[in-house]
Amino acid sequence: MKEFELIKKYFTEQAVKRKDVLIGVGDDCAIVTPSEKQNIAIATDTLVAGVHFPVNTSPRAIGHKAVAVNLSDLAAVGAEPSWVSVAITLPEIDEEWIDEFCKGLFELCEYYNVQVIGGDTTQGPLSITITAQGLVPAGQEMLRTGAKSGDWIYVTGELGDAALALSHILGKETLEQAIFEKVKQRLDYPTPRVLAGQALRNYASSAIDLSDGLMADLSHICGASGLGANIVLEKLPLSDSLVEALGEEKAIETALAGGDDYELLFSVSEDNKVGLETALGHTGVKFTCIGQFNPSEKITTTLNSKPTAINVKGFEHFATND
Amino acid sequence: MKEFELIKKYFTEQAVKRKDVLIGVGDDCAIVTPSEKQNIAIATDTLVAGVHFPVNTSPRAIGHKAVAVNLSDLAAVGAEPSWVSVAITLPEIDEEWIDEFCKGLFELCEYYNVQVIGGDTTQGPLSITITAQGLVPAGQEMLRTGAKSGDWIYVTGELGDAALALSHILGKETLEQAIFEKVKQRLDYPTPRVLAGQALRNYASSAIDLSDGLMADLSHICGASGLGANIVLEKLPLSDSLVEALGEEKAIETALAGGDDYELLFSVSEDNKVGLETALGHTGVKFTCIGQFNPSEKITTTLNSKPTAINVKGFEHFATND
Repeated sequence: MKEFELIKKYFTEQAVKRKDVLIGVGDDCAIVTPSEKQNIAIATDTLVAGVHFPVNTSPRAIGHKAVAVNLSDLAAVGAEPSWVSVAITLPEIDEEWIDEFCKGLFELCEYYNVQVIGGDTTQGPLSITITAQGLVPAGQEMLRTGAKSGDWIYVTGELGDAALALSHILGKETLEQAIFEKVKQRLDYPTPRVLAGQALRNYASSAIDLSDGLMADLSHICGASGLGANIVLEKLPLSDSLVEALGEEKAIETALAGGDDYELLFSVSEDNKVGLETALGHTGVKFTCIGQFNPSEKITTTLNSKPTAINVKGFEHFATND
Repeated sequence: MKEFELIKKYFTEQAVKRKDVLIGVGDDCAIVTPSEKQNIAIATDTLVAGVHFPVNTSPRAIGHKAVAVNLSDLAAVGAEPSWVSVAITLPEIDEEWIDEFCKGLFELCEYYNVQVIGGDTTQGPLSITITAQGLVPAGQEMLRTGAKSGDWIYVTGELGDAALALSHILGKETLEQAIFEKVKQRLDYPTPRVLAGQALRNYASSAIDLSDGLMADLSHICGASGLGANIVLEKLPLSDSLVEALGEEKAIETALAGGDDYELLFSVSEDNKVGLETALGHTGVKFTCIGQFNPSEKITTTLNSKPTAINVKGFEHFATND
C-alpha cells in the first residue's frame, strides 16, 4: 500500500467535520478560518515508543494517549480543542495496528469535536507527534505566570496511579492483577481535563497540566510566577488502589513525583474560591485544594501541620543527574 | 542538562518576535492572535534520519531542510509563513549538534519572519517533525483542485539536482567533485518558494510543491482536478550540472522522477498568463511553462512534438510495488 492511500483511507473518513475547517487532509496544507474574538492555543507533544509508553502498549492506547497529552496542554490554558495534525512514524505497515491506533485517536477527537486536519506518515522507529490547536476567548488564557502569593493550589482527579502502573510494568513493584488493571487504565487512557480547563478560565490565576509529576510541574509555576509553595501532604488526592498497593507514605511520594497523571494543577485567589468551586462542581470533575503559594521561592511540604523533608523530582527526558 | 534548560536555551533566544504571538515557548501552549481577514494554512512534515536525509547530513542542513519542506507546503497554497512548532527526537544530547541544527533552522525562520512558538524535545532515534502555519487572505488559497483543461503548467527553478546528489550519495552515480558539491547544496538546502507562492495567488488556478517528483506530484493535481496533462520534455528546466553529469535523456528522466526539488508546480489559464508572468518576474524566481492540462485523465509526454513513452514514478514511502 502506498503512503497516500494509507493516509487517505484512515484520515479522510473521520466523522468530525468542523465548519471552521475549509480544507482538511489531502492538499499541501490544511486551511482553517479563525475568529477575531478567539485566540489560538497551540501545543505539540511527541510520544516515542519505549520512552513515553512501554513498547508493548496497545495501539489503541497509543492513539488515545497521543491526542490526550496534547488536549491536556490545551486544557491547561483553558482552550477548547479544535484541530489536530498527526505525524506518525511507523517501522512497517500493519493495517491492524493502524486501525486500532486510529480508533483510539478518533474516539477522543470525536468526543471533543476535534478534526484531524492533516499530518504525515513516514517510515522509521515508532513515534507520534501531534500538534493540537484550540480556541480561547482573547484575554482569558490561563498562564503559568499568573499565580500570586496567598493563592490556593488545587488539583483535579487523583494522583500517582499512572506512575504505579508504570512501576509494575518496569518490575519495580509487583501489583495484584485487579489493582494493576485499574491503574493501567490511568496510564494508557489518561483523561484530558478539557471541560474543567474551560470552567476554570474566569476564576483560576494560573494553571498547568501534570505530565512530569506534581513537584516538577508545580516548580514550573513557582518559577514562572516568582513564588514558593507549601503542599499539605494529607490533602493529596490518592486512589484507594494506590494506598492499598504502597501504603500511605509511599503513596504520597508517588503522587508527588510520578508523571503521566494529566490532571490539572491550578491556583485561585481567596476571592475567587467560591466561584471556582461552583463552576468546577458543574463539570463533575473531582478537585482538591492541596496547598498555598507563598513568597519564599521554595517548595515545602507539611504532614499533619508538621514540616516534612521530602526529596522528589519529576520525570525529565535526558535527566542525567537523577 | 535537563530537557527544560535545553529547550529554553536554544528556543527562547530567537530574534524573531512577532506581534501576533502573545505567548511563545515556555507555557503549556503557545497563544497566537489571528486576524479575521486571513485564513490559516497548516502543514506538518516529518524528516526521519536515513529515510529523508542521509545519516551523515550536517545538522545545519537538517535544521534548514526541516523548516524548508514545511514552508514549501505553505508556499504551495500561497500562504505567508508565520509560526512553527518544532518537535525534535534526539538519540543523545550533543550541544554542538543542537547548536548547528538551530543555526540552520533559525536562519530560515528569520529570513521569512517566522517565530518558533513551541515544540517538544524527546529522546529516541533522530527525527524532526515541524508544524508550520501561515496566513493567506481568505479565499485566495491555491488548491490542487483548481486546475482546468487548457490551463498551462509551469514550474519554478530547475529540476532533478537534488535527486542527482542523492544518487551519488547512494553510490548509484559517481559525480565529479565540483558537480557533486553544487547539486548537494540543492539536496541539503532547498529553497522554499515562499515569495513566488504569494505572487501566484491572484493568477494560478492550482499549485503543489514538488517533493515526491514532478510526475507523482503532477498526478496529484490531475487526480484532484479530474484532468490529464501533457509535458513537453524539451522544455523541462534542467541545470547544466544535471545535463553534464547524465546526458540529456537521463537528465530528463531524473527531472521527471526525482524527488526533493521543493519547487512549485502550478497552472494558469490563457487569460491570466501575462499577469502571472509579470507578477512572478518581480520575484526574480526562474519559471518555465512545461505543458498543458487536458481532459484525458492521463499524463503523457512529448519530445520535439513526438509522443514518448516514459515510465517514471515519484518517491513514496512504504512503496512496496516499485
